[in-house]
Amino acid sequence: MSEVRVIQINESVFAENDRTAELIRKRLTDQGTLFLNIMSSPGSGKTTTLVALINRLKGRLNIGEMDVDIESSLDAQRVADRTGIRSLQIHNGGLCHIDADMTARALLEYDTKGLDLLILENIGNLVCPAEFDTGAHRNVTILSVPEGDDKPLKYPLMYQVSDVVLINKIDAMDYFDFDLEKAKERILALNPKALFFPISAKTGEGLDAVCEWVLKEVAAVKA
Amino acid sequence: MSEVRVIQINESVFAENDRTAELIRKRLTDQGTLFLNIMSSPGSGKTTTLVALINRLKGRLNIGEMDVDIESSLDAQRVADRTGIRSLQIHNGGLCHIDADMTARALLEYDTKGLDLLILENIGNLVCPAEFDTGAHRNVTILSVPEGDDKPLKYPLMYQVSDVVLINKIDAMDYFDFDLEKAKERILALNPKALFFPISAKTGEGLDAVCEWVLKEVAAVKA
Repeated sequence: MSEVRVIQINESVFAENDRTAELIRKRLTDQGTLFLNIMSSPGSGKTTTLVALINRLKGRLNIGEMDVDIESSLDAQRVADRTGIRSLQIHNGGLCHIDADMTARALLEYDTKGLDLLILENIGNLVCPAEFDTGAHRNVTILSVPEGDDKPLKYPLMYQVSDVVLINKIDAMDYFDFDLEKAKERILALNPKALFFPISAKTGEGLDAVCEWVLKEVAAVKA
Repeated sequence: MSEVRVIQINESVFAENDRTAELIRKRLTDQGTLFLNIMSSPGSGKTTTLVALINRLKGRLNIGEMDVDIESSLDAQRVADRTGIRSLQIHNGGLCHIDADMTARALLEYDTKGLDLLILENIGNLVCPAEFDTGAHRNVTILSVPEGDDKPLKYPLMYQVSDVVLINKIDAMDYFDFDLEKAKERILALNPKALFFPISAKTGEGLDAVCEWVLKEVAAVKA
């Protein structure tokens, strides 16, 4: 009987991606740039949150932003218009995520030298982006109150890979049936090291604490 | 010089999927079952909307439901508990969509004979589910007010393939910066035949009109 060879295609794809991601992380660490990957559902307030954070931080940090969308350039334009920083729009041709190779290609187009902070606004999706390490130092997920406190139960991998969870639209808390403690508990069961920041990108509530965290992480990369 | 053969892998994958989808549609049409595929972002209110619609329709129609999730069985349980109908949970192993083959496999497990209406609650995602015909007669997308009226610009394929758009959480309209006319205009630019139903699954507003539409579509399949 002849021997049958078995290949693990997925494992190989992810292993390759992880190697590229490590190269990206090393290069950005070497030049003192903190790289944050921001993920969430569509409509949870990624762009609004980024604009608010960048405007609070841009006096203290040199910031760059890359925005992934299927085909529109709305988000990069919004970030650039509302913050004055340099933003790159990445069109990913209909894919549901961005992987390390795509990030590496974007970095060929976007000069990150001298940046203290590089932010990647990932595509709005709670499934695929969680599967691919982009080379970011930290993954940040936004969970907005109207989405419900059960999202960690339904999209567990996203919360397993997230270092920080921003609970956004807390100004609408009275309006929706959202239990903040239950949400935290469910996320901590998946990822005991997760940090939480309840925020409202609209009113600005809670954003100062997020800025403090970012500044601390930038200092750690430069150390 | 030898000839090089070129294969279009994507085209072939989708063509294969489309053939399976046609077989599913034909079988369900032959037995007089309307098959609806419900799509949206995570947290836009798919399950709540389905529960409300099923409870309004179950006296007049024999209804079945299949629910796709990555690993939890929350949604199928909720639907079954709150409506009393038979619900099947499909775990799709971490994928961001369900395709026609997966639907066909689910139909091997779930006897649909005698159903007037079969509802598929797709995975919460505005990208991948739009790419795969599941064999449904009609695609229904839920766009919830807190997500913003720009979603059609950012996830155009989803709106191109949707026959009906339910604009959900209209009870929160005063709270968010959502322009209903702008949302409709953007969707109609992508899909001039799209039908709209502004609803609140929470208060019940607008749901009777959706039920009327469902009853009309069931009659059409049986005609």
